[in-house]
Amino acid sequence: MKNFPIIRSRRLRSTPYTERIEAHGVSGYTVYNHMLLPVSFKSIEDDYNHLKKYVQVWDVAAERQVEISGKDSAELVQLMTCRDLSKSKIGKCYYAPLIDHEGRLVNDPVINKLENDRWWLSIADSDVIFFAKGLAAGHNFDVKIHEPNVNILAIQGPLSDDLMAKLFGDEIRQLKFFNFNYFEFKQDKYFIARSGWSKQGGFEVYVENDSAGQKLYDSLFEYGKDLNVKAGCPNLIERIESALLSYGNDFDNGDNPFEANFDKYINLDTDIKFLGKEKLKKIKKDGVSRKLMGVKIDHNKINMSKEKELFDEKNNIVGYLRSAAYSPNFKKIIGIAMINKPYWDGKHQFKIEINDKTYLGTVCDLPFI
Amino acid sequence: MKNFPIIRSRRLRSTPYTERIEAHGVSGYTVYNHMLLPVSFKSIEDDYNHLKKYVQVWDVAAERQVEISGKDSAELVQLMTCRDLSKSKIGKCYYAPLIDHEGRLVNDPVINKLENDRWWLSIADSDVIFFAKGLAAGHNFDVKIHEPNVNILAIQGPLSDDLMAKLFGDEIRQLKFFNFNYFEFKQDKYFIARSGWSKQGGFEVYVENDSAGQKLYDSLFEYGKDLNVKAGCPNLIERIESALLSYGNDFDNGDNPFEANFDKYINLDTDIKFLGKEKLKKIKKDGVSRKLMGVKIDHNKINMSKEKELFDEKNNIVGYLRSAAYSPNFKKIIGIAMINKPYWDGKHQFKIEINDKTYLGTVCDLPFI
Repeated sequence: MKNFPIIRSRRLRSTPYTERIEAHGVSGYTVYNHMLLPVSFKSIEDDYNHLKKYVQVWDVAAERQVEISGKDSAELVQLMTCRDLSKSKIGKCYYAPLIDHEGRLVNDPVINKLENDRWWLSIADSDVIFFAKGLAAGHNFDVKIHEPNVNILAIQGPLSDDLMAKLFGDEIRQLKFFNFNYFEFKQDKYFIARSGWSKQGGFEVYVENDSAGQKLYDSLFEYGKDLNVKAGCPNLIERIESALLSYGNDFDNGDNPFEANFDKYINLDTDIKFLGKEKLKKIKKDGVSRKLMGVKIDHNKINMSKEKELFDEKNNIVGYLRSAAYSPNFKKIIGIAMINKPYWDGKHQFKIEINDKTYLGTVCDLPFI
Repeated sequence: MKNFPIIRSRRLRSTPYTERIEAHGVSGYTVYNHMLLPVSFKSIEDDYNHLKKYVQVWDVAAERQVEISGKDSAELVQLMTCRDLSKSKIGKCYYAPLIDHEGRLVNDPVINKLENDRWWLSIADSDVIFFAKGLAAGHNFDVKIHEPNVNILAIQGPLSDDLMAKLFGDEIRQLKFFNFNYFEFKQDKYFIARSGWSKQGGFEVYVENDSAGQKLYDSLFEYGKDLNVKAGCPNLIERIESALLSYGNDFDNGDNPFEANFDKYINLDTDIKFLGKEKLKKIKKDGVSRKLMGVKIDHNKINMSKEKELFDEKNNIVGYLRSAAYSPNFKKIIGIAMINKPYWDGKHQFKIEINDKTYLGTVCDLPFI
């Protein structure tokens, strides 16, 4: 696939770190929440190998926040997600699928509970702010909804704790998964969560002050020299291996949360009120006829720009491949696909066309690792 | 500014015409409504010169449709916009700013009235579908909301009528501005509006069948050889000269419609019900303290990736430049800027820094031509 340059404009927002990641050798962008998100530095495979061994600093400012505050904020936030937040606690992060009136997916943010009446939805690539504003206006809720100037730096990789402890002290090692707290470095206070879009361990720093964030960015590289710190970004290979789903790639507003394997975040048995609840009850009762599964393909190169059909030996549709990359770990292409029901048992072979040639693959469970 | 490749994925949707525009030499993309939108072919300046003289075929599938249908659809559509649609007619297109509860802009679609209870909102770059879904759920409206598979081809330029008449017959010349109708070519029927994102004249074909659209794309080039037809796209220079505003570039959810010069589409004196109406009444009464104006700058090159500050001789902020390009017509940089009130009179000089050098410019009225 030929490369085309991305043409910049104010509409494709830069981040406070854009100049820095360009100095660090970013080699390609995507656009996410109307903002530039780096996709690779040296190469996706080199970045992958480094991420699994050392520590990386990521500009993930494109994970925008929707702040919802005010008297009715808890009711509004709950209305948007099928995950029961009635026992949620301040200082914790909740991965929560957002659902529309039809029982279909709108986004899959991490919801941070800052106070009982103040929430940050750290969103995937869709304009949750307008969903929230529409609902709030329709229900006449007493809430404020806005996008605060928060620009996340993620520190990811097995040496993340060592790097962060150098700046913030050893206490940061005690921060539990999907918890957040405030930590200080050189007179600046940072909101830090143990979270991130890899399964290699690490933190996300929700930076509220641009210049403090830029100082932190530079300091992470200074302090991390002996840890072989590098600039990185969410990595396609790693995230597929770990089955970290991507809204718009693996699932979208055409899919329901059961099809996307969000079962454990769908709480239908309490009396909490959320959109699409009756639809989801019906879907659960009837069962789904397709769901996201892993696939492995006997080939070493693939570029995805739209979903690709998978066929059985009789040319029936097995499903649709939505994300894929060559995994140096499995020595195969691995991918995430929406697979039709008769092909779920994890041993089904299929055919796929890649650049006009036919290759064989098998359906498998997620995650790969 | 260095060029970076855009890294493809399903999330940055291709269009039915992507392969064709790549064969026709597209040289850069932006992302718009989660979809690829071409930005240039030969060069933005060459494309501009051609567009103003001949005719171009544009892949503007990224102008996505939000279809709203059902018993309460007219009420919902009206609720979203400050433009009075109570006398709207089937077969007509209405440019209509969408407004949130705070009186701020959400989008500026062209609203096509297909039937009394069926509407297409042809949107700029924000997820209007979730705003509509939130409002519909909150108000318990009886509506259906979805994104139909519509992929617009625009035919733009002074020879547009001649080209379209070759395919669809001379009757298409009678189609009035911002009206639409169905026209036939080789057994396929197409929804065609006289509209488009240039002021060089032309049509937008709302293609509902991918393969019919691809056939039409190819036929437009076959039939248009002697008219010097070329592949094109919305052109930065032309759209700034014509003051065709761009959501996300020139204005966004931080601005109100008075600041964006939408006065003639703000109907506060009827009893129609829409979001933010009371806020807009107050803003109108109080007056705004900044608004979009044109600027001309004495230089020949600019790349925008974020807004740029404009200063007066005492280093007070004059405003913020949001879009800009070198105009071969004016032999200056022209741009659209949010200008503070004391600097509105159209003769104010300002200073601007471009690549670490200071240049002079003046504020002027819009449009430029």
